[in-house]
Amino acid sequence: MTADPSGWTIVEEAFEPSRQNYRETVFTIGNGYLSTRGAFEEGYPGERRATFVHGVFDDVPVVVTELANAPDWLAFAVYLDGERFSLEQGVVESYRRAVDLRSGLLRRELVWVSPGGKRAAIVFERFASLADEHLLALRCTVTPDFDGEVELRAALHAAVDNEGFAHWHLAGQGQRGELAFLAARTRATKVELALAMRLECAQPAIAGAYWDAAGAPTFTRTFAARKGQPIEAVKLVGVASSRDGQQPVELALAAAARPQGWDAAYAPHAAAWQAEWQRSDVIIEGDVEAQQAMRFSLFQLLIAAPRHDDRVNIGAKTLSGFGYRGHSFWDTEIFMFPLFVYTAPHIARNLMNYRCQRLAGARAKARANGFEGAQFPWESADTGEEVTPTWLTHFADRTKLVRIWTGDIEIHISADIAFAAYRFWQATGDDAWFIEKGSELILDTAKFWASRAEWNAAKGRYDYNDVIGPDENHDRINNNFYTNRMAQWNLQTALDVLDWLRQHAPQRADELSASLDLSGARLARWQHVIEYICLPASQDGVIEQFEGYFQCKAVDLPSLEPRHISVQELFGIEGAAATQVLKQPDVLMVQYLLREHFSDEQVRANYDYYTPRTDHTHGSSLGPSIQAIMACDVGKPDDAYEHFIRAARADLFDVRNNAGDGIHAASAAGIWQAAVFGFGGLRFSQGGWQVNPRLPRHWKRLAFKFFYRGEQHVIDLSN
Amino acid sequence: MTADPSGWTIVEEAFEPSRQNYRETVFTIGNGYLSTRGAFEEGYPGERRATFVHGVFDDVPVVVTELANAPDWLAFAVYLDGERFSLEQGVVESYRRAVDLRSGLLRRELVWVSPGGKRAAIVFERFASLADEHLLALRCTVTPDFDGEVELRAALHAAVDNEGFAHWHLAGQGQRGELAFLAARTRATKVELALAMRLECAQPAIAGAYWDAAGAPTFTRTFAARKGQPIEAVKLVGVASSRDGQQPVELALAAAARPQGWDAAYAPHAAAWQAEWQRSDVIIEGDVEAQQAMRFSLFQLLIAAPRHDDRVNIGAKTLSGFGYRGHSFWDTEIFMFPLFVYTAPHIARNLMNYRCQRLAGARAKARANGFEGAQFPWESADTGEEVTPTWLTHFADRTKLVRIWTGDIEIHISADIAFAAYRFWQATGDDAWFIEKGSELILDTAKFWASRAEWNAAKGRYDYNDVIGPDENHDRINNNFYTNRMAQWNLQTALDVLDWLRQHAPQRADELSASLDLSGARLARWQHVIEYICLPASQDGVIEQFEGYFQCKAVDLPSLEPRHISVQELFGIEGAAATQVLKQPDVLMVQYLLREHFSDEQVRANYDYYTPRTDHTHGSSLGPSIQAIMACDVGKPDDAYEHFIRAARADLFDVRNNAGDGIHAASAAGIWQAAVFGFGGLRFSQGGWQVNPRLPRHWKRLAFKFFYRGEQHVIDLSN
Repeated sequence: MTADPSGWTIVEEAFEPSRQNYRETVFTIGNGYLSTRGAFEEGYPGERRATFVHGVFDDVPVVVTELANAPDWLAFAVYLDGERFSLEQGVVESYRRAVDLRSGLLRRELVWVSPGGKRAAIVFERFASLADEHLLALRCTVTPDFDGEVELRAALHAAVDNEGFAHWHLAGQGQRGELAFLAARTRATKVELALAMRLECAQPAIAGAYWDAAGAPTFTRTFAARKGQPIEAVKLVGVASSRDGQQPVELALAAAARPQGWDAAYAPHAAAWQAEWQRSDVIIEGDVEAQQAMRFSLFQLLIAAPRHDDRVNIGAKTLSGFGYRGHSFWDTEIFMFPLFVYTAPHIARNLMNYRCQRLAGARAKARANGFEGAQFPWESADTGEEVTPTWLTHFADRTKLVRIWTGDIEIHISADIAFAAYRFWQATGDDAWFIEKGSELILDTAKFWASRAEWNAAKGRYDYNDVIGPDENHDRINNNFYTNRMAQWNLQTALDVLDWLRQHAPQRADELSASLDLSGARLARWQHVIEYICLPASQDGVIEQFEGYFQCKAVDLPSLEPRHISVQELFGIEGAAATQVLKQPDVLMVQYLLREHFSDEQVRANYDYYTPRTDHTHGSSLGPSIQAIMACDVGKPDDAYEHFIRAARADLFDVRNNAGDGIHAASAAGIWQAAVFGFGGLRFSQGGWQVNPRLPRHWKRLAFKFFYRGEQHVIDLSN
Repeated sequence: MTADPSGWTIVEEAFEPSRQNYRETVFTIGNGYLSTRGAFEEGYPGERRATFVHGVFDDVPVVVTELANAPDWLAFAVYLDGERFSLEQGVVESYRRAVDLRSGLLRRELVWVSPGGKRAAIVFERFASLADEHLLALRCTVTPDFDGEVELRAALHAAVDNEGFAHWHLAGQGQRGELAFLAARTRATKVELALAMRLECAQPAIAGAYWDAAGAPTFTRTFAARKGQPIEAVKLVGVASSRDGQQPVELALAAAARPQGWDAAYAPHAAAWQAEWQRSDVIIEGDVEAQQAMRFSLFQLLIAAPRHDDRVNIGAKTLSGFGYRGHSFWDTEIFMFPLFVYTAPHIARNLMNYRCQRLAGARAKARANGFEGAQFPWESADTGEEVTPTWLTHFADRTKLVRIWTGDIEIHISADIAFAAYRFWQATGDDAWFIEKGSELILDTAKFWASRAEWNAAKGRYDYNDVIGPDENHDRINNNFYTNRMAQWNLQTALDVLDWLRQHAPQRADELSASLDLSGARLARWQHVIEYICLPASQDGVIEQFEGYFQCKAVDLPSLEPRHISVQELFGIEGAAATQVLKQPDVLMVQYLLREHFSDEQVRANYDYYTPRTDHTHGSSLGPSIQAIMACDVGKPDDAYEHFIRAARADLFDVRNNAGDGIHAASAAGIWQAAVFGFGGLRFSQGGWQVNPRLPRHWKRLAFKFFYRGEQHVIDLSN
């Protein structure tokens, strides 16, 4: 990828088939309703061609549910005197692909010579309208270098799948005036998705047809080609599902019919992006790479963020790939959420409402596990049930299965979601929302925590046994500091919230006390858990990550270099668990989230202890951005930069070799946190906010904006 | 289904959507190269539309491999003045579907009135040529009852899947003269399959087009409709895969181009079927239902039987459904094989060669399990590796998995295959084949049996522990009589075979002795196992099915009636295992296969003991036909008939409610065995053959033919 001095474009100067899938991820475009990976309009072998629409899930064997790759709207074929354009054959004389982050426009321009010797300049452009989320646009311009014929074919295709899993049954297709449409229905969840298309051509065609072929309605147009005279066609596509209304075909047809031409579609879209950047942009001067990565990350998060739908969340891989099947994790609340809370509270509210509406699922999960209150699923999709696969076949031996425990015992997510709800309230000051929705979530998760705590009579304390903390190198452990401390926070916050409600919304306090059975005895129990929760002992100010961690085997991580695999791959799952090597440092994570509860000395002691024990290069992709923030906290902005830039490169440089599965959304949002809370040193407290800048030496300027209690603030820092 | 007095047609007088999938199975047609289920040309919601081509397997997650549902050749749409014909809408004034078993022609005729009031008589006919296995033909005749337009669309579709698993990538398509083609490639196994089509119309069209829509090449023809004047179109389809040659597209194009019209394609096909029936037919007079079921069963086996390919076997559900994913079991060698050995030895040879060619896989399996020789897989597909799924998710609780043990320990299949090889040799007298191929299989399976036997020093005997016999109600048992006795047979036969080879083919005997390491010590060990194998003790002549069976809980099966579920569903898997209820009777099965080793008294004692302990109605579909034979053996032909007719109804009447998954091939072939070996009483011995007829009282005549040592014999029995 070429660094662009403006920081506004991501450029690919040559097509390399070996990098095809990761570049499809990088060139994902979207509008918060759907995203489309950067597969080529004309197709290419080995592509992971995909469009994911928020909330359109379907069942899958063993791995439960996934976002169903939607029927393909991109399909567009070009024929030069009867020869089909494809990068598989002929000669590519020049090639450039770029996405303009400022406007969300993906453009590919190339000069191609067919095997038969016909040369043409071909340009493809596409965008998903940010102004009209049901509208997609694609423009193809062919400038032939010969006299003859150019044929264009624009199609909609029902025959798509999720890497082998077929989700759609054809539900209808046909022609309506100058529009064609295609409707398909998911097999298990019965969501109907409709696409409609219109083809506008600048030049008159000498022939044209509509092909109503089953599952592949297609418009064809043939043009007389004259050397040097461009031929331009605009494919306008409408998309809607039964989640949007009862007649998705009509909605899709209406969307495709709305704009008159490319410019009419593009202008409001570009204006919407301008407003988006006005609110969200972070300016970094003196570091082109950081600037570009920052904007790329913001772009990827903004195109995945639901603007008009509060029944969906953002998956760990956004809407940009098959990885994690569109499921949402704590990645949303702890890593992505701050960006939205402080730059786009309307989006943050949608995300939070998704969780509030799924309290029923969380309650059912708690009940099924023998607990009270709300236990949120580790992986969440449409219904709010737990959708973590319980078993996966071993990658090397199909007769062995690996038990996936995260859905059972990575319980910290309930506190993480409560933390986000509280943060949203504090940042926005939206008491009405908090009274109606957020407070219940915090109270009901507290109820879960109190029931999940086990009284250890021998030691006179409460334990959380058999858990997994954020550091997944160590599973099925007892008294993980992150889990216990966040549980304690959740319980204490619930008591505080109930007091506040009694003062400011006594009727709602009564309602919730009744519906959640918040008896005096229950509240006393909460208090008891808060006081007697096991928080592992300190040695020289160092907090033990979990019971027994200090006894694990020390490993000299630098001595393992050069290393291209994780310690789990190196030592095996159980071997890695026996070491002190962390996938990410739980204690520092708590200190980051609950910073005001720790002294600078406590932070430094734990930073110094855990930093060399953390696998920064091949551990969790969630780690580096938080590590960067904590490095700033202890006054090491240059160390911080190393972690920051590692996070920044995760997708643009495919440093973990899995960007083809989709954007590392937590890492992408983490670099915003690292810039704003780390280098910018922004901190919030009851009294308001403050900045304590600690910029990397080579940065000349860092500027960002944030909302706090309804007002936008602009921070502009120079070195 | 309507009984047809001729016994040659299977008729459906009305379309019932609730029976759709089972009727698709019943109306499967094929030609030994492929089969196509009886889905409607125009499609219908909920269909299990499928064409399976022998040997075209692809990988599937968890369940290993499956026959990939081939790209669809059937697609054919009819439009009456623009309204698409579909049984989903409009009015069906009359309907009849029938398959003519004599000629393998499936015909559907109906009168339909469109929602807009256009009436037409529509007839669809199709066959898979038995004379040219790469040729398929479909004829559509529309007789409009109005003046206007009729449009026909014939297509090939790449977008097919196996109940949610997508197997194909589009590999090419286009037009070649009057032909169109489509090529697709399986994703993992990279088999290329090509279809080509031609459309011949008896009347001149007023318009027509070829639509090259991606994955759905389509011919359209529009005709001026005149009331009462039929419009006829013939779709000729060629099919070939990369298993057939390097250029499947060319092969498919050539096949579709060969015949000039329907009659030219049909005549050699019908002649081939005439020859097939000449060889195979079984005549039953005095019982229309039995006659029809017999011919239906023979038809279903004949269309699944490979005539020109010895790299494939027949799956437990033939090529007629998704059940068991096209995998082959002992069903082939023990249930289907006799039909082919005695009526179509050329087919039997292909089936046997499939096993001989997969000795490498069987050796690898033995080696992987720590044994010697050849251990055949319980489920076999393309490569000869074990393809039994090891784990399946529990149908009721996705967090639980059920361990499938058959692939590990249902070891009797190795003796079953050896038994079939020996039977083939004995029946055909084909010494050359046996010397070259069959003998090695028998010797190498014996090697396995000797290594698998465990010396029980305490009891001075050899045990086969931790096995599953044919009666799968009892798994992980020790010393199953079927397993032990067939192992003993395999070892003894191997010694006999080696003696025979030494006499008749001494060079081959030396070769095999060397390559299989048949040392004196090894042969002595075989002899020792034969002599000391544990064959559970008898009580009053009753043989204990496995060690401890007599201690299992007795169940009064009639007291459980009326019952619509198996005893496993009733008592649970472990509950059923604690009872004496058999899924099928292993001791009777041995007595059937090795009849000459048991006295009539022994057979009667075991028949009387095990018959009331067997779940005849909801146990194995393999059971009834063998039970019928043993009932004949003990002189109870009317009891026998009850079992026979239960087997005969398995698919035609969907008595087990799973015919939609495909034909019960073992049951279908079992009714041939029941007629010939049971009612006909045909028996072979070293000296030749004899018949001892025991016809059901109401049968007037039973006639059949069989080959023995190269000569065809005709048996014609009257009551």
